[in-house]
Amino acid sequence: MPRLWNETIEAHRRDVREAILDTTAALVADQGLASVTMSQIAEEAGIGRATLYKYFPDADAILSAWHERQIAAHLGHLVTVRDRGGDSDEQLRAVLEAFALISHESNGGGGELATLLHRGAHVVGAQQQLRNMIRALIADGSTRGDIRSDVAADELAGYCLHSLTAAGTLASVAAVRRLVDVTLAGMRPPIHRE
Amino acid sequence: MPRLWNETIEAHRRDVREAILDTTAALVADQGLASVTMSQIAEEAGIGRATLYKYFPDADAILSAWHERQIAAHLGHLVTVRDRGGDSDEQLRAVLEAFALISHESNGGGGELATLLHRGAHVVGAQQQLRNMIRALIADGSTRGDIRSDVAADELAGYCLHSLTAAGTLASVAAVRRLVDVTLAGMRPPIHRE
Repeated sequence: MPRLWNETIEAHRRDVREAILDTTAALVADQGLASVTMSQIAEEAGIGRATLYKYFPDADAILSAWHERQIAAHLGHLVTVRDRGGDSDEQLRAVLEAFALISHESNGGGGELATLLHRGAHVVGAQQQLRNMIRALIADGSTRGDIRSDVAADELAGYCLHSLTAAGTLASVAAVRRLVDVTLAGMRPPIHRE
Repeated sequence: MPRLWNETIEAHRRDVREAILDTTAALVADQGLASVTMSQIAEEAGIGRATLYKYFPDADAILSAWHERQIAAHLGHLVTVRDRGGDSDEQLRAVLEAFALISHESNGGGGELATLLHRGAHVVGAQQQLRNMIRALIADGSTRGDIRSDVAADELAGYCLHSLTAAGTLASVAAVRRLVDVTLAGMRPPIHRE
């Protein structure tokens, strides 16, 4: 990291904050949620306890902040994937696959933490942003004829998001890709079969 | 209820047990989980407290038993729906729709209770039975050519079950039916499109 940047107080504070989040996440992953203390976090992060309390009142607040950062990173990643180009159908497939892979990977991260953290305003906000992004891609696809238009884009977005959470239970990335295929197939314009 | 039946001790015990479960479920639905006491349950069920304690040690145990009964009833309903006849494709659609409607309806029943109860061995067992039932119907459909064979039946069963939980967020039965259509469409043999 360039020193010049680090010389501003703002940047220093941000670095300390990031270090606290990283340390806490690592401790929780290691030894579970219940046993992590503020003293331990301070020690592992290499700061004093008094300093730690200037940043966060307790371990729960740190975990919330860490989770908020994770979710923002995931959303940022999905936006990047969407903006990589291609037509709306390629974008939709890319975003759905990226979302499924996130579900697939984060499932390893312990149910305890997930249950504790999957509430809060930032989660609801992020879910809404994600749903809006997917709905917009579906609406585009529907206009282009790639996606069925007999079901509202918002209903299809809800279907996608639920269907792809199955990725958390799958054993391989290949299986995740098949799930994305099946999910997309459900949204294609219906063809009348014999 | 015919008296003759009720005259056996077995049947009487079963009736009391059912009455306790019904009373407790109604109390919890009314006033929330935290405030329901054993005294209140005994009073509302019209039995003594000592009798109540012969059946259940605490309110949590009653709720677990109630939930187990609910789940058994849901599974029984799905088996009935499956056995109503038709070919395997009609059976699959009927079972998926019945499952989606259960998800749709039980969503109204309060998140607090759901979070508390959706663990426990009986839930895992019932989920496995449900998944097995759906997987068998999918495997049949795949043999008959109604369902794609490029994805394993068990993966498709997982996809269905996750996708259809979206029914819990839908506003109408018509929307639930559309979700079942979309979910089934994802499982049709792929058609090569232009």
